[in-house]
Amino acid sequence: MSAVSELSAGELRQLERELSASYESYRSRNLKLDMSRGKPAASQLDLCNGALDKLETTRTAAGIDARNYGVLDGIPEMREFFGKLLNLDPANITIGGNSSLNLMYDLLVQLMLFGTAGNAPWSKLDKVKFLAPAPGYDRHFAITEKLGIEMINIDMTPNGPDMDQIEALVAKDPAIKGIWCVPLYSNPQGICYSDETVARLGKMKCAAPDFRIMWDNAYGVHHIDGETILADIFDSCNAGGNPDRVYYFFSTSKITFPGAGVSLIATSAANKKELLARLTVETIGYDKLNQLRTLQFLPTPEALKAHMKKLGAEIKPKFDLVLGVLEKEFAGTGLLSWTAPKGGYFIAVDTLDGCAKATVELAAQAGVKLTGAGAAFPYHRDPRDRNIRIAPTFPTLAELDEAIRLFCICAKLAGVRKLLAEK
Amino acid sequence: MSAVSELSAGELRQLERELSASYESYRSRNLKLDMSRGKPAASQLDLCNGALDKLETTRTAAGIDARNYGVLDGIPEMREFFGKLLNLDPANITIGGNSSLNLMYDLLVQLMLFGTAGNAPWSKLDKVKFLAPAPGYDRHFAITEKLGIEMINIDMTPNGPDMDQIEALVAKDPAIKGIWCVPLYSNPQGICYSDETVARLGKMKCAAPDFRIMWDNAYGVHHIDGETILADIFDSCNAGGNPDRVYYFFSTSKITFPGAGVSLIATSAANKKELLARLTVETIGYDKLNQLRTLQFLPTPEALKAHMKKLGAEIKPKFDLVLGVLEKEFAGTGLLSWTAPKGGYFIAVDTLDGCAKATVELAAQAGVKLTGAGAAFPYHRDPRDRNIRIAPTFPTLAELDEAIRLFCICAKLAGVRKLLAEK
Repeated sequence: MSAVSELSAGELRQLERELSASYESYRSRNLKLDMSRGKPAASQLDLCNGALDKLETTRTAAGIDARNYGVLDGIPEMREFFGKLLNLDPANITIGGNSSLNLMYDLLVQLMLFGTAGNAPWSKLDKVKFLAPAPGYDRHFAITEKLGIEMINIDMTPNGPDMDQIEALVAKDPAIKGIWCVPLYSNPQGICYSDETVARLGKMKCAAPDFRIMWDNAYGVHHIDGETILADIFDSCNAGGNPDRVYYFFSTSKITFPGAGVSLIATSAANKKELLARLTVETIGYDKLNQLRTLQFLPTPEALKAHMKKLGAEIKPKFDLVLGVLEKEFAGTGLLSWTAPKGGYFIAVDTLDGCAKATVELAAQAGVKLTGAGAAFPYHRDPRDRNIRIAPTFPTLAELDEAIRLFCICAKLAGVRKLLAEK
Repeated sequence: MSAVSELSAGELRQLERELSASYESYRSRNLKLDMSRGKPAASQLDLCNGALDKLETTRTAAGIDARNYGVLDGIPEMREFFGKLLNLDPANITIGGNSSLNLMYDLLVQLMLFGTAGNAPWSKLDKVKFLAPAPGYDRHFAITEKLGIEMINIDMTPNGPDMDQIEALVAKDPAIKGIWCVPLYSNPQGICYSDETVARLGKMKCAAPDFRIMWDNAYGVHHIDGETILADIFDSCNAGGNPDRVYYFFSTSKITFPGAGVSLIATSAANKKELLARLTVETIGYDKLNQLRTLQFLPTPEALKAHMKKLGAEIKPKFDLVLGVLEKEFAGTGLLSWTAPKGGYFIAVDTLDGCAKATVELAAQAGVKLTGAGAAFPYHRDPRDRNIRIAPTFPTLAELDEAIRLFCICAKLAGVRKLLAEK
């Protein structure tokens, strides 16, 4: 198909009739398909079933009985494992429970109620703002919204969030206390922050002395095509003279089982001290047996990387399928643009302005569930109503094939109808 | 020994010399024993090793793949299990992670930040107060202290906290927002709330419309000698016209493995709705595989009760040993009083006024670690410096025998020295 915007009104009407007919024939089939959430498929989970095995050892290397209370920041071998895997100092790591999102929520609550580094608790301030590179992860934005933190949209570029925008904002407004980042294979666009972006985040001048980066490296080892290397945010912050600026999050939720793995938070010694002072009130400790269970299944960082290659091989055909169909259906039409991520869990598309909601609604009525339009933006408001997140991992290949083909018809139909309305 | 307070100064001096000699002979042995925390012994944990087995089924009865994300309030069979075990409505139960303490902290943070039932968030008020039946659980008091909630000591009676004190306070002071309760085999005295106490808590008139009971039924099935039945706090609150007054907590931490089990919070439908509205922001869900693992090891409430009988049989000789030695060493002396719990994890003793710190310090110098004096009181301040919590479960019987004998010498020595100083 060539550029649809150049068609005459008559040609558009003809195209609309053809697309409507295709759409109705899909709709009559009563599909029930889900491309809405970043969930692994059963075939991926099957590759993790070794993590269900009997736990053979309940003593840590240092002889601690992991069946009993204690060890607030995680067993040493788990911290060392992640230190090697992610190039982090094990001393700066605290192992959490089954959810890194929970660690993020808890941490922001801590900053709200108790503040950090002698600064006022954020809840005592008239206004607290956070930078939200968008499109981004809906659950991040839900946390800041729930806590009454005002979000400011930051545009995404192929190198990460627009650093010019960010630097200008943080330099002058002390109410801006932080930023959400998914630096590798960002949710939903699959963008990888460039070395320059990471360097600038670490060294930029912030009016707020307690400006903090929420560095959610959710897809840090989730490569699909090759292996993109992310610059070290701790190095950047240290080089910039801002050692306490970053909280780094990671979890095994998409390595072993979602919601049944282990998570971590890594941060400076000063920040970790504050963290533990809160954690020791909040809990007696996280699940050490699950830490041992994780290590039994994946004894070394190398074993984990080999496992991730298997998972990546399981996911790659799905990404290839979606990208291939999008290319075939939309190249040159001007109706849709999209990213081609080399890892992570999502593909983001942009329809014509004002067509995202209509597309999602058409798909829903034909039985294909997509992430809600606008979900990837603070307050669910996509300023141009164009972004849609496609989550290709959960359906089978056959289901995905059907779902993405229907999606194409819906996106085209919404686009053509918009162009017609403008004629 | 007869009443020591009636001895002459000369007799006291003689006794002090004898006790000092015994103490020094213990001290020269360089003991290293711990009676400080309510931890199960390795022999108890060995009885739970079945919970380490391979997880055979990852599907719930309703066919949900528990390996994946979802099911925020816990898998139905886990809620039904606890419903039967504890006589709770499964619909009112939310299953948590590995720590009920964490659920309590999170809930109080929720009330601080967001409030409940349309009332102002507690963090927006000039002053928030909580009733603290004392002696009580140090980690409860640590949470309210951390959150800046002022605690008011309530005396304990053999029937639970002093309800006359409580009713008088809550009727007139709207700043009093709640109370901590360990209603069965209280920590540290092992006191069980009487039916009347439970009824009065449910129906008492509170000046604060959002007064809440933190009902930590930590030892709800932890019987050692017979089975004490606790009245139903939900029935009491409903009968009193206060259906939203109570949050009920429980966990399997001392049923399977401390810090590796599952927890729950049960509360009214209205409260659960608020709870889930916060939880859905905080996490994608708790560890469902650990819920299935718990059910695989303990498939029915009856299986759990049989298991608790085994654990109780493991603990009983330790309680008997401590109580027997205390009786033999202190009966009639007037130097020590104590409780004789029929369940739970602790024995609480009262020394002469002003002798708890000295006793704990003497024991520490001879290598026996006790819970810090004052730990069972808000702000670590025991107004009479007399209460000491003895945690007999963790040491072996032989270690416990040695530790409790040394304890007796320390408590006597501190008491005799005090009486001498007053002569």
